[in-house]
Amino acid sequence: MPGTDLPFSRQEYADRLAKTRKAMEAKGIDLLWVTDPSNMSWLTGYDGWSFYVHQGVIVPGDGMPIWWGRNQDSNGAVRTVYMPDENVLSYPDHYVQSTERHPMDQLSGILTDRGWGGLRIGVELDNYYFSAAAFLSLQKNLPNATLVDATGLVNWQRGIKSETELSFMRKAATIVGRMHGMIADRMEPGLRKCDLVADIFKTGIAGTEDFGGDYPAIVPLLPTGTDAAAPHLTWDDKPMQSGAGTFFEIAGCYRRYHTPLSRTIFLGKPPQFLVDAEKALLDGLEAGLDAARAGNRACDVANALAGELAKAGIERSARCGYPIGISYPPDWGERTISFREIDQSELKPGMTFHFMPGLWMKDWGLEITESILIKDSGPAECLTDYPRPMLVKD
Amino acid sequence: MPGTDLPFSRQEYADRLAKTRKAMEAKGIDLLWVTDPSNMSWLTGYDGWSFYVHQGVIVPGDGMPIWWGRNQDSNGAVRTVYMPDENVLSYPDHYVQSTERHPMDQLSGILTDRGWGGLRIGVELDNYYFSAAAFLSLQKNLPNATLVDATGLVNWQRGIKSETELSFMRKAATIVGRMHGMIADRMEPGLRKCDLVADIFKTGIAGTEDFGGDYPAIVPLLPTGTDAAAPHLTWDDKPMQSGAGTFFEIAGCYRRYHTPLSRTIFLGKPPQFLVDAEKALLDGLEAGLDAARAGNRACDVANALAGELAKAGIERSARCGYPIGISYPPDWGERTISFREIDQSELKPGMTFHFMPGLWMKDWGLEITESILIKDSGPAECLTDYPRPMLVKD
Repeated sequence: MPGTDLPFSRQEYADRLAKTRKAMEAKGIDLLWVTDPSNMSWLTGYDGWSFYVHQGVIVPGDGMPIWWGRNQDSNGAVRTVYMPDENVLSYPDHYVQSTERHPMDQLSGILTDRGWGGLRIGVELDNYYFSAAAFLSLQKNLPNATLVDATGLVNWQRGIKSETELSFMRKAATIVGRMHGMIADRMEPGLRKCDLVADIFKTGIAGTEDFGGDYPAIVPLLPTGTDAAAPHLTWDDKPMQSGAGTFFEIAGCYRRYHTPLSRTIFLGKPPQFLVDAEKALLDGLEAGLDAARAGNRACDVANALAGELAKAGIERSARCGYPIGISYPPDWGERTISFREIDQSELKPGMTFHFMPGLWMKDWGLEITESILIKDSGPAECLTDYPRPMLVKD
Repeated sequence: MPGTDLPFSRQEYADRLAKTRKAMEAKGIDLLWVTDPSNMSWLTGYDGWSFYVHQGVIVPGDGMPIWWGRNQDSNGAVRTVYMPDENVLSYPDHYVQSTERHPMDQLSGILTDRGWGGLRIGVELDNYYFSAAAFLSLQKNLPNATLVDATGLVNWQRGIKSETELSFMRKAATIVGRMHGMIADRMEPGLRKCDLVADIFKTGIAGTEDFGGDYPAIVPLLPTGTDAAAPHLTWDDKPMQSGAGTFFEIAGCYRRYHTPLSRTIFLGKPPQFLVDAEKALLDGLEAGLDAARAGNRACDVANALAGELAKAGIERSARCGYPIGISYPPDWGERTISFREIDQSELKPGMTFHFMPGLWMKDWGLEITESILIKDSGPAECLTDYPRPMLVKD
């Protein structure tokens, strides 16, 4: 019972599979074991919150991919993937979080039974959901296999977006614009931070009258004042204070596709250093957008930004952007290219990035960011037209 | 600048550390490398959405723990942990998601510099955030160390809850009761599922007038009709239909502590098989709660449930419960004990579980669950008093 509500056409999945196989060939990989939920979904359509147990997609040298996971989740797999039911395999529940047996031992049995035990098998060595124990299980149970590092192999195929993928991201862009609009309206001294976050979630999930929202792979991040030095703090239930800035790092999400966008609001009168930093950052964004052209390199964007910030005496060492698209927690980035001075990756039409020059200084922070699309020619297109300047509510 | 808003007393953190060290000793572990964000937080107070990059807590044989992570996240660490700033170490940003260098290589340098390179080091081999590549990096860079499997070592110390932890879970219980109350009010034919989920998030995060809510480690799961066979599907933007049941698997969360609770709503007139299954499930819950006593074993709860379900001809193979407390995505369970017929773990006063006998059958599903506390004597206490029966809205 193949998924009847597939987000993409059969042809698009076939194209993705072909691209992946080409990359496998280039690395001499006969069979690929895919555990990254984003890659699993991109390759097969699978969608479910089941990545807290061992699961994955087998990509053999030919034929359709095979979904493998916990028995009760195979019910979700047959409802979401494009492959026929016989390509959905599972392990019994007593393997789950057991101290006596590991689910991956069962997977090795399947691979061996199908005559795949002696192949060169690509594994995503540096992935959240491929644990060291999973690796050691394969190593032990498949003594004739050669395990090859395939970290990011599928991620790299996801870089250039199709028209349908872009249409999903434009919907996510509409959603994130509404989220920031709501924040700008509601933000005021005395408002409990948790109450604002509650409305951020509500706005993002409800979406629009025409389409609903999905859960972003990262929760809203909105540190205030000196805490804005720490980009990944979440919220508390304290009231907003006058005399402090808060940045809002959030994303809209539609069918697992993300459009992140950060903006900053200051309650009261911002200090001059923040106003100066804002100006430098806005100039840096413009310079970066102009550098984000097909044929240029990731480092060109980073250097263009750094040049403008340097004029204001601001030095930042963190990368200032990463590719975006389909994703699952805990990260909405694709984990391939980084906008940083040492990254020579070429920018190509159809690539999408979160251009993210967050300023996290010793005791303050400022975030103004854009989700961008690399065009055939000219500077990058911003996926939203939400006003950039820091909103001052005095 | 140690965290000024620590959720627990210094004494409680000292007790946790002592318990952990006792478990390390029992396994002959000199130094523990903790990557599970729940364990990191339980041991140090650290709280932030930064687990998408490599990070962890070093527990040496004596002295305070050491937090280690990405440079920009050290700003969050010094704001949340109880240790002094010199116990917060970090790696530069060019290690992040780099194809050329791995952050864990830098960690090995630190361990070697401190004379810890030849110790027996415990690692959480089967953990979401300890990748195979992280393990291989330690293996390569610490040739004199002995890496010992410490999966679950800290998790097992978390089983019995302190009074403060229970007070957090009771707050989370209040929140999840409100969430179900809102659902019961709003659920009706024509309501878009995404709009209901939007309000579930809003209610859970806003919390009460006295305290705000935190993000649960799993998003709301609410499959309808035949899709309820698949426990981990998320939502879409289609309107609710009459003539179908929907279960709601959600949790309240307060300062990372979870109280999950599932209930089922049927719009229209439920078929007799569902009414029969509900009766068997309610009887099974009562029987399980009665078996969930100090001194009994995990399997006793599973068997008590299974006995009642068998009377109605219902066979289920999945485990029917797991410990709960502090957690981060992707799972709100503690991943130690399972309520299943082969688990002989003894139930002790102060342990908390999600008693979770979900029925996921071939083409229907039903969930009625309880978060429970094992008492000194007598049957388990339910953390909420939310009515159990399936709500029928005809």
